[in-house]
Amino acid sequence: MPRVAVVDLGSNSFRLVVFEWEPGGAWRRTDEIYEPVRIGEGLDASDPPRLQDEPMGRALETLELFAHFCRHLGVADVRPVATSAIRDADNQAEFLERARARAGMEVRVLSRAEEAYFGYLAAVNTTRLTDGVALDIGGGSMQLVRVGDRVAADSASWPLGAVRLTERFLAGGSADPKRVAALREHVQSKLAGVAWLEGAGKSGRLAGIGGTVRNLAAATMHANGLPGPNVQGFELERGMLDELVEELAELEPAARGKVRGIKPERGDVILAGALVVQAVMEAGGFEALEVTEAGLREGVFFSTLLEGSDPPLFADVRAAGVRNLAAQYDADSIHAGHVAALALGVWDQLGDAGLHAADPAERELLWAAAMLHDIGVAVDYDDHHKHSRYLILNAGLPGHSPRETALIAQMARYHRKGTPSLGDLAALARRGDEALVLRGAALLRLAEQLDRARDQHVRAARVKVREDVVRLTLDAAGDAALARWSAHRHLGVLERALGRPVELA
Amino acid sequence: MPRVAVVDLGSNSFRLVVFEWEPGGAWRRTDEIYEPVRIGEGLDASDPPRLQDEPMGRALETLELFAHFCRHLGVADVRPVATSAIRDADNQAEFLERARARAGMEVRVLSRAEEAYFGYLAAVNTTRLTDGVALDIGGGSMQLVRVGDRVAADSASWPLGAVRLTERFLAGGSADPKRVAALREHVQSKLAGVAWLEGAGKSGRLAGIGGTVRNLAAATMHANGLPGPNVQGFELERGMLDELVEELAELEPAARGKVRGIKPERGDVILAGALVVQAVMEAGGFEALEVTEAGLREGVFFSTLLEGSDPPLFADVRAAGVRNLAAQYDADSIHAGHVAALALGVWDQLGDAGLHAADPAERELLWAAAMLHDIGVAVDYDDHHKHSRYLILNAGLPGHSPRETALIAQMARYHRKGTPSLGDLAALARRGDEALVLRGAALLRLAEQLDRARDQHVRAARVKVREDVVRLTLDAAGDAALARWSAHRHLGVLERALGRPVELA
Repeated sequence: MPRVAVVDLGSNSFRLVVFEWEPGGAWRRTDEIYEPVRIGEGLDASDPPRLQDEPMGRALETLELFAHFCRHLGVADVRPVATSAIRDADNQAEFLERARARAGMEVRVLSRAEEAYFGYLAAVNTTRLTDGVALDIGGGSMQLVRVGDRVAADSASWPLGAVRLTERFLAGGSADPKRVAALREHVQSKLAGVAWLEGAGKSGRLAGIGGTVRNLAAATMHANGLPGPNVQGFELERGMLDELVEELAELEPAARGKVRGIKPERGDVILAGALVVQAVMEAGGFEALEVTEAGLREGVFFSTLLEGSDPPLFADVRAAGVRNLAAQYDADSIHAGHVAALALGVWDQLGDAGLHAADPAERELLWAAAMLHDIGVAVDYDDHHKHSRYLILNAGLPGHSPRETALIAQMARYHRKGTPSLGDLAALARRGDEALVLRGAALLRLAEQLDRARDQHVRAARVKVREDVVRLTLDAAGDAALARWSAHRHLGVLERALGRPVELA
Repeated sequence: MPRVAVVDLGSNSFRLVVFEWEPGGAWRRTDEIYEPVRIGEGLDASDPPRLQDEPMGRALETLELFAHFCRHLGVADVRPVATSAIRDADNQAEFLERARARAGMEVRVLSRAEEAYFGYLAAVNTTRLTDGVALDIGGGSMQLVRVGDRVAADSASWPLGAVRLTERFLAGGSADPKRVAALREHVQSKLAGVAWLEGAGKSGRLAGIGGTVRNLAAATMHANGLPGPNVQGFELERGMLDELVEELAELEPAARGKVRGIKPERGDVILAGALVVQAVMEAGGFEALEVTEAGLREGVFFSTLLEGSDPPLFADVRAAGVRNLAAQYDADSIHAGHVAALALGVWDQLGDAGLHAADPAERELLWAAAMLHDIGVAVDYDDHHKHSRYLILNAGLPGHSPRETALIAQMARYHRKGTPSLGDLAALARRGDEALVLRGAALLRLAEQLDRARDQHVRAARVKVREDVVRLTLDAAGDAALARWSAHRHLGVLERALGRPVELA
């Protein structure tokens, strides 16, 4: 399987990520090393801006470790990309030369436009953003890309990274209102020049990448009692962010790093980052920011994985995420696909009969749950329905909100037994979701029984509703006695879901 | 990889389990189907005892499903074994003939001695039993095997299964004290004839297999607020069992199936099973019963997996369990083994210096945690320390108590970051375990950093304690600057664990 190591030499941290993929198949991160190098430390305080000795020393040490790591793993395709701090440094050439000599790395310094482009690829390939703006805030710079019908239409970049602004406006720690106001004004004045930003929130979405955004989302989820374990697809609402900013501004930097969801090493720069995000949301009139776990390095990787497409985008982010997760755990895809077809077939007919609202969003969630219902077998056959839930929740599903991911996980959780419920994910749910999970799990369970021998002998189940009784008839290739017998004993949950008797002819 | 399907035609339930193994390597269950067939229903009420039409119909239907399932999976090696109900039935030949005709299965009817032997293999290969008694209670019969130095020395079997005794003594539901007393007396009279049982608890252990025992353990764990998710290695104490029996006796059968830990389909027979286990503990003077997730089918499988050994036993159950789990998730075994060597090397020297009590039991747990610390990578690289914990807890470790498994899981959980603690497993722990986990996690973290590039360049770390400062010196093949640099930033947790400064030379 091809592998590539993307090295992201950010102003705040360096990160090495190894991706492995099957051409046309699944991809996954197999390794990751993260170092809070802070190469941009002291850059702006010097004139002309220069990488300082100590940060450069840490950076070279880290690159040597990364190179060593790649050699040992046998990953030959290593792609180091540098952003803001290195881009803006007067002694950039010296650093590049020393990186080459010491670690054998040919570092590619991304232009502002290139950096914005890879951020855009990461955002559009992992969120629900089709029209609107992609935001990427790092340690050194901040990029915005205007997106129309999933294509990058405009972009802009400023030296408004979290580390940079902290040094300039909030150095020394405390954040008195005056300094916060000065930072705000500075950011606002920069954003004021971007005509396409104003009013972008009226018809478009905002999606964000980068550690600042992920930490803000995690802190907000904690504060609101929303279950993790990750922030994929979370919508950070403006009111929530405003509250968090207020809280952070009142704390000393060290205490900010102790707020649940904020990493300790980010404590001193998170406030500046939060203020930038807030300013972007205000300037564009965005009510919420969709957060993704992906970052610049995923953008670089996607440009390789999806080389054949221009621009390199998944045709359908949500379906690609589901299929990728299924392929990663090597589920029996023929069985999973057949269970999906059987369950959706019955769901469609029940909708036609008026037994549910036939919401296409629900249909898509049921499809995803069917595709993923057995992935937990990779953990252990015993309790594999529970493991499927665990894997779905932990992986997160690009293009899905935490609520949607939770509903998919709960349907998979109850595909064999138990009483379907929202469990400890109830805080993410909306009205009607309990019934949705019950209905989905009941149909999955029926479909699972109809293909219990995984032989696809039962092709479909026909639904007829008469005098309030739901009658199912099987359309089978050959003997369906076994499937009927298996399914028969699992009709109870479907009866509860539909609120009426179900008979299997 | 070789695969075998063991089909266990028990009196209470039929179970198909597919095992897959690499010769000399890892083994795992890959599939399992369970059907509460109750083939023994009505057997004893008929004279001579006969398999009744309805139960036989359910049994044949189930076997057909199982055969179909094996054909579809491509598993050719199918081993159906029957126990008590079929063994004792007057119309056994008719059933075997119909099973052959309908499902193509050649069912092997195990003698009492054979059934006891496979149960013994399951128990001794998955628990800490070396001397004492192995108990196996099924739906139809109950077997006891006397074990001396891990070898089966004696055995006895009675028609004292949970389904059988329920039909004879507790039919119709309610369990008034008279009927309970009659059942007790009946079991006691049978056990009274076994000379080697009396006083066996003085110097030996009791280990138990079978669904009854697992359900009793799960219910007890729930009742005592002990975290699951499985019962592997749990010691069911006599007092706990007495309380549970009292509770169950007061409930109607349907309500018994709603007690947390008891499966609904077992509700009507669990009380009889509990009374038998209680009687065995009393007769042998056992204070506790060690429970395992393994059963008769694992015994049959072990006789194949360990064919070369006589008797087919793992040389070291605990180590075999750890190694098997590591191999299942395909961890980098060279790295894991090296981390173990580094961590244990430092642990040994710290013990020599009097900085901990040098308890060999702690050393073994640290070894296991080192071998398993990275298995979570199979789930996802992100948060893989948390996934390692999840996989360890869910799999359970044969030969380990839930406390030991929890300590291993927590050390693995904290091998990268975070503040080591017992978390929500504290209810399983003893005094001093918090410090044990902190020490183990700190050493794992040090060792992980010393082999961060997974190149085994650092061979060992030497410890010297002077004026209360712990000094570490690295013994390295080649440049150890990177390892030193990485380890340096993770010494804080070790300092906390040892309560004194740690320096890396």
